[in-house]
Amino acid sequence: MTSIEDFTRQYGLVQKIDAFGYLDYLKNNPDAPRKHGKVVLVTADTPLKASRGEGKTTTTIALIDALNERGIDAAAVLRQPSMGITAAGSKGGASGGGKASLTHPELIDWGLCGEMGAIEAAQNLLVSFAEKAVDEGKLDTILVPRVSEVPSRSLRQIAVDRGKGDVPERVVLTPTCELMQIVVLSRSMDEIAERVSKMIAGTKDGKGVTFGEFVDLWRITGILSDAVKPAKTETVNGSPVYVHGGPFANVSIGIPTLVSVEMACALHDVVIVEAGYGTDAGAQKWLDIACREFDAQWPSAAVVVTRASTWRDDPELAWRYPFHVQRLEGLDIPTFPLINLWEGEDDQVPALKQTAKDLEFREPIVGNLFRDGGEALAPQLDAFVDVLQNAAAPARPSSHSGMSVIEDAKWVAEHAYGVPADRILLKDGFVASRDEAIALCESVGIDITKLALVAVKSPATMTDNDRAPEDERTVTLKKVEVHAGAGLVHVNLTTSLTTPMPKIV
Amino acid sequence: MTSIEDFTRQYGLVQKIDAFGYLDYLKNNPDAPRKHGKVVLVTADTPLKASRGEGKTTTTIALIDALNERGIDAAAVLRQPSMGITAAGSKGGASGGGKASLTHPELIDWGLCGEMGAIEAAQNLLVSFAEKAVDEGKLDTILVPRVSEVPSRSLRQIAVDRGKGDVPERVVLTPTCELMQIVVLSRSMDEIAERVSKMIAGTKDGKGVTFGEFVDLWRITGILSDAVKPAKTETVNGSPVYVHGGPFANVSIGIPTLVSVEMACALHDVVIVEAGYGTDAGAQKWLDIACREFDAQWPSAAVVVTRASTWRDDPELAWRYPFHVQRLEGLDIPTFPLINLWEGEDDQVPALKQTAKDLEFREPIVGNLFRDGGEALAPQLDAFVDVLQNAAAPARPSSHSGMSVIEDAKWVAEHAYGVPADRILLKDGFVASRDEAIALCESVGIDITKLALVAVKSPATMTDNDRAPEDERTVTLKKVEVHAGAGLVHVNLTTSLTTPMPKIV
Repeated sequence: MTSIEDFTRQYGLVQKIDAFGYLDYLKNNPDAPRKHGKVVLVTADTPLKASRGEGKTTTTIALIDALNERGIDAAAVLRQPSMGITAAGSKGGASGGGKASLTHPELIDWGLCGEMGAIEAAQNLLVSFAEKAVDEGKLDTILVPRVSEVPSRSLRQIAVDRGKGDVPERVVLTPTCELMQIVVLSRSMDEIAERVSKMIAGTKDGKGVTFGEFVDLWRITGILSDAVKPAKTETVNGSPVYVHGGPFANVSIGIPTLVSVEMACALHDVVIVEAGYGTDAGAQKWLDIACREFDAQWPSAAVVVTRASTWRDDPELAWRYPFHVQRLEGLDIPTFPLINLWEGEDDQVPALKQTAKDLEFREPIVGNLFRDGGEALAPQLDAFVDVLQNAAAPARPSSHSGMSVIEDAKWVAEHAYGVPADRILLKDGFVASRDEAIALCESVGIDITKLALVAVKSPATMTDNDRAPEDERTVTLKKVEVHAGAGLVHVNLTTSLTTPMPKIV
Repeated sequence: MTSIEDFTRQYGLVQKIDAFGYLDYLKNNPDAPRKHGKVVLVTADTPLKASRGEGKTTTTIALIDALNERGIDAAAVLRQPSMGITAAGSKGGASGGGKASLTHPELIDWGLCGEMGAIEAAQNLLVSFAEKAVDEGKLDTILVPRVSEVPSRSLRQIAVDRGKGDVPERVVLTPTCELMQIVVLSRSMDEIAERVSKMIAGTKDGKGVTFGEFVDLWRITGILSDAVKPAKTETVNGSPVYVHGGPFANVSIGIPTLVSVEMACALHDVVIVEAGYGTDAGAQKWLDIACREFDAQWPSAAVVVTRASTWRDDPELAWRYPFHVQRLEGLDIPTFPLINLWEGEDDQVPALKQTAKDLEFREPIVGNLFRDGGEALAPQLDAFVDVLQNAAAPARPSSHSGMSVIEDAKWVAEHAYGVPADRILLKDGFVASRDEAIALCESVGIDITKLALVAVKSPATMTDNDRAPEDERTVTLKKVEVHAGAGLVHVNLTTSLTTPMPKIV
């Protein structure tokens, strides 16, 4: 009998799974044994700054350990951290900590099996072929950026062919590039090839030219052959953890690959999906992009993580946490507040619980997960488990396909950031940028309203002025960028960087 | 009992071996079972152009298959091909072909287990930290280049921080960078860290500043943790093949890692080491750098591969092949000519054998290795096997440490290219570049004469004018570049590119 083992190979201390092959097998063998796991989103309060995590990965790990301890077959799906950022010291690793750890966090933090490097090489190869197309007169402008996993502020704006062409270019972080988005959203290598062929390489005489017109796609799929396979590892307590896809839900989609989640759902009863940064970032992207437009599973429950200090110590921003919890509940997703305590904060539990009660939250889950791991959570999960066991199969949400870019951006601002349509501002140049994007799409036969909207924003703010009173907060739309291959249109909001390429610290 | 299996892990369809650990174990357990394999160099005639291989990898694979068929435990050590170059189509893969193939050539050609990507990330991270050091006033000029595995002519010269600093930089191919050289030449992770700490990041007030002064080395060794492990695969006939280290013996050292060869020698009786491009490139580097300065094993025999067409069809360049064979014989290395036939060339065998006889070569080995694989060779290997079975332990060659840069370059030109000292020309600017390199070394406490000389040259020429009569050929020295961490000093000769970053074709 065929089983997941037939699609699994050892890669050093982790395993890699041919998820495309396994899901294809399940599709062709509807009677093969499989589970129908429910997706739980672990997301967080908007962090006070980008480098300050609330503890989502630690929570995710503690949560599956606690569920497995209770006899529930639960797995986690994490994104692969950005090695460049970790190695540069700009941010800690993203593989949990303390008792809520992976067996080999160093593998996850230090490049796993070369997935990110392969995507980097493939996207850069596309740019090299675009350059060749310029030399051959097939293109006059290149629109696809080069990528680097290693951050370097001076790569934000570069000029190549110095002293001759002096062509302005920009370099973006590998995990945020269109090819990573394609890997995250595709369900087969054929779909990847198809999407790469639809990527707009640049323009010739003002009209878009796609890579399908001049690049042999086997060059790209060859490079990606191992990178498309999710990695499997485990927590120190033996709970299964899949790792696949890139981070940065602020400037890209920043969700795990759809196939890693679908595979995990076929293998386990509960699948915890980590949705990066705040609810306004990773969760918004999972719900409004993955679920609405790419047929991912709507979550049966959500956990919104915060630190006691994030919630309490900055009163001007304290509106954000209840806003997130209520937004998810409003979508009929049972939402559990989880307060991840730091050392010395145990005495704050009664006050935190009272606040949660005043806000009419569900009973919060509270624990020092670094110190105590899943053990601290297991006894608190009755209501959570009850919700999962009684959840109906989640409904398929409505698509936003057909909404104009501005309409869709206003919808996101209103629902995910709490800013109504009449306080959405258009920065000078936005309309021109939008019109250019529409024309570019039309020139390659794409209707821009069919692309899913990616709000590109700061990870630490939801509006132009999160500290202002509610009725004064605004959201400004700055710029539009088309990722036709991925099926996405980026809209830069508020305080986002146009080219996210951090300085190392 | 401990064995090599204890240091080996499966990585997908290949294995990766902790060579550092295994060699350390052997060192600490002098009575542990081990072999003392003899090294055979497979090198070639200087190719007519860079993209035209003579068939070294095909020969190497056929040779170990033939030896194993004869009951001799033989393995090959190959370098990992440059995926960027292969994917771009500038050059075929480097994993043999036809009956002389690896079981999974696509793995070797398409990035293996991410080794090159890890080295790329680590070297680029060093540059990012150098940039930070500039911001902090610790450096004013950066000397270490960024790297890219993907070729792109417009990256030869770039300006970063466009519109602000507009700092000129260059990008070199990943396999040729100093960090790759360090991985190739080091025998432990501690040695790698030590060498990285001695890399000259740049200058401050005209004096060299090393990375050891401002970078935490764990960041680099963390990224490299898997990349330092040789991969093991096999030929379609089951002969063992190790793959480790980067190509390009024209612009860098281009030899396999020293530890991969040493490990193979502890495991097999005959170890075929592929030395890239012509004898003037890969073999010269193995002999004069690896063996003379880094304690690698002097070869017990050599095979010099040529195509019938390379040898015969360009009479002006026909001096090169016998020059190479005689040069190696002159070093007391029994040297076997091997003519790798293409389809339709079988009828040339008698004429080729007569030419070899006229040149007083050993009996040449001749075969269509793509078509016939090792079977074509096995019956022709009596003399070759005889040499290996009767070889004394090779002598340790003399070091060139202490020779001045010009003295050493003249030695190489005379011995490896046949151009005497009085026809070595110094290009305008060479002396200044040399003096600058000496001063840079002195400023960090290094004696430049202790560094091993790397001749940076075109892969397809040995002199300024290979087609001129012997007594008119010259070699011009153009520029000096210090790789203090690797323990190397580069001297650019003749027609070399200063920044090797090919255009894709």
